[in-house]
Amino acid sequence: MAAMEEELKALLQDIESLKRSQSDAKSLHSVDERIVRIMNVTKFGTSRRSKVKDMSAEVADSNPYSRLMALQRMGIVENYERIQEFSVAIVGIGGVGSVAAEMLTRCGIGRLLLYDYDTVELANMNRLFFRPDQVGMTKTDAAVQTLSDINPDVALESYSLNITTVKGFEIFTESLRAKGSQKSGRSTGIDLVLSCVDNYEARMVVNQACNELGQTWMESGVSEDAVSGHIQLLVPGETACFACAPPLVVASGVDERTLKREGVCAASLPTTMGVVAGLLVQNALKYLLKFGQVSPYLGYNSLKDYFPTMEMRPNPQCSNLACFERQKEYIQTKPARDAAAKAKIEVEISAVREGPLHLDNEWNISVVDNSKMEISNGCSASDDALPEGLIHELPSAGKYPESLVVGEACPVVDDLEDLQRQLDALNAS
Amino acid sequence: MAAMEEELKALLQDIESLKRSQSDAKSLHSVDERIVRIMNVTKFGTSRRSKVKDMSAEVADSNPYSRLMALQRMGIVENYERIQEFSVAIVGIGGVGSVAAEMLTRCGIGRLLLYDYDTVELANMNRLFFRPDQVGMTKTDAAVQTLSDINPDVALESYSLNITTVKGFEIFTESLRAKGSQKSGRSTGIDLVLSCVDNYEARMVVNQACNELGQTWMESGVSEDAVSGHIQLLVPGETACFACAPPLVVASGVDERTLKREGVCAASLPTTMGVVAGLLVQNALKYLLKFGQVSPYLGYNSLKDYFPTMEMRPNPQCSNLACFERQKEYIQTKPARDAAAKAKIEVEISAVREGPLHLDNEWNISVVDNSKMEISNGCSASDDALPEGLIHELPSAGKYPESLVVGEACPVVDDLEDLQRQLDALNAS
Repeated sequence: MAAMEEELKALLQDIESLKRSQSDAKSLHSVDERIVRIMNVTKFGTSRRSKVKDMSAEVADSNPYSRLMALQRMGIVENYERIQEFSVAIVGIGGVGSVAAEMLTRCGIGRLLLYDYDTVELANMNRLFFRPDQVGMTKTDAAVQTLSDINPDVALESYSLNITTVKGFEIFTESLRAKGSQKSGRSTGIDLVLSCVDNYEARMVVNQACNELGQTWMESGVSEDAVSGHIQLLVPGETACFACAPPLVVASGVDERTLKREGVCAASLPTTMGVVAGLLVQNALKYLLKFGQVSPYLGYNSLKDYFPTMEMRPNPQCSNLACFERQKEYIQTKPARDAAAKAKIEVEISAVREGPLHLDNEWNISVVDNSKMEISNGCSASDDALPEGLIHELPSAGKYPESLVVGEACPVVDDLEDLQRQLDALNAS
Repeated sequence: MAAMEEELKALLQDIESLKRSQSDAKSLHSVDERIVRIMNVTKFGTSRRSKVKDMSAEVADSNPYSRLMALQRMGIVENYERIQEFSVAIVGIGGVGSVAAEMLTRCGIGRLLLYDYDTVELANMNRLFFRPDQVGMTKTDAAVQTLSDINPDVALESYSLNITTVKGFEIFTESLRAKGSQKSGRSTGIDLVLSCVDNYEARMVVNQACNELGQTWMESGVSEDAVSGHIQLLVPGETACFACAPPLVVASGVDERTLKREGVCAASLPTTMGVVAGLLVQNALKYLLKFGQVSPYLGYNSLKDYFPTMEMRPNPQCSNLACFERQKEYIQTKPARDAAAKAKIEVEISAVREGPLHLDNEWNISVVDNSKMEISNGCSASDDALPEGLIHELPSAGKYPESLVVGEACPVVDDLEDLQRQLDALNAS
């Protein structure tokens, strides 16, 4: 850039000398040459990598997908290239949403829809992604500018609008509904919505749209003291919706709509937001590419490095009518699935009954040795032959404790027939 | 940039028309005007924010530190401004190190020292931070280019060298030793070293340097299948050093030096690396700014969203002589601290003895109810009065389970006098 400024100053001098001797063809030629040089400098500054049609697994410095395609060779993902078929919508391009967008872009996602109404400010510079030279641009435009440079293979759509307005909501739901050209078998044109907004009202709007469309989405949030956050998977009808049990409002204990008062601002850290964005997109990749376990809810308390998980079932008394409809559909259209699940559980139970630990164990009490995990990861003899003094970094897969169920939305209904009766009663009334 | 290219093309046309009618003063004037516009575009593209001398808590869109200073108002950090006094060295500016550097830069760290010998390649584009237009630059130069634009308040030092060479190691340790001008009371010129390298050899070199200098450091790593990682705090003499129990080599089960063979490459994901960088810098901020609990070890298994923690004590038979020396010093210089800790434990033990759960409990067995946490975070009645149907997002601080100790370097020596005898015996031999 400094080189360009020098060239331009010299160009001005050329013009000055042109003014003095207007018949000098040599000056004109030198001006021509200078402009070509400037255009080369400009090109260098905006040099973008060319589009790549197919993802190659070739190990070469010039291959932007080699480290991702290696996930197949490592046996983690069955078909990584499928990522090009997916469309993801990100609502809220702030501290979490912008980083989530960058991660998906670098992963080579097919299509990315970005929604935000805000502009970039210097006050946003304590979080990743936006640069000081983007101050004043809309967040969606600034994001498209950066992301299209990073990976031109991703189809980017920018929606600079407020989804909580009537008009904004209309455009929002229409853009979700619009069919992508690549895939069928979806109720909308996209595969997943990621909510990265910073207030209760916007979350309820995303919830409303996704309940109406039957659209699976993931919610994320960071506390206003900047040191904790969470992600959550929401499948309309199958899991709790945001109106069934809104976790962030409960956690903060304040009406978030009052947060943006004059002279008051929430704290934020690039670390917490980066971790939450990473956990969110990791969960999205697991969901889309079908590997690992998709977390229904994952909290992050950074002060204690504590990560609670839980599952939340839908509230049959949910005030959101669309949620109510999806719950009904879920029950009506999935009897086969439930029967299969029940049969599977019965097989497992009978297997347990066949081999009790102690024949005289009247209460079926089993002893869980909490020190077992210490031992299996510590220095005592274990099944895996390791040299003395060496330990496993992480316990092997079989040794993981089950995800800790720390809470459920209430009331919890275990009996689906009972839930059906309740729904029928509500419909009749 | 597109605007500039258009301007330049128009400029070429102006020159063409100048060539046709060399006496047209109006054309010359239009060329002048066009050049001024181009210079404005150039300036806009390179606009950097001006330096800020003092961190202000003022809530204004133009204040890059308002959201960080809010950590004080929220009661999380006592004195956020102290961050300007700290110097942090980051070794390895790859998928984890570059993001760690960006986070610290955006947090307004005082001084950042960056070490790497590699250049940016397109194959790095599946991780955050580097841009395609930086391909071919050294990673340290590219990082300085990006980071100085983001926050000109940070003093950046770039070391493009290989720390595993004799010369590189010399410059590395010298740069760590060199006193910063801002602070005293440190054995080196920096407050913390973050190791973000991708191989065993480099980790052992950082370990050697930090053991020699008595320098506290944090280690980080991501598995070659891209789906797990860890961070670890290493305080020479006080915790296990990397040679006491090298976790990554054990976890992978292969010699990492063989990883960079022709045609073979490790997988990587921006998500896993972003999470590890976030956890690493969060731990660094907690350590530097004294808030929350600094984690001695934190693992991240993304397939199960499982985050094991553990503590590792130094190995008194550690093969690293400098570690051995630091262990000796730690014991010799800390008798007062150990006595205080012992007294504290005795008080706690006597408190437990005074009130046994069951007087007839011969074996001192106590019942730990694993369902307790489910209840306290679920929907049953709890101490905190919440409206029906609402749950806490995270358990309140008092309800956290203790960090799970899943392993210790062996052999573990609990008796410090015994350790001293062992050290004396080894010194005498």
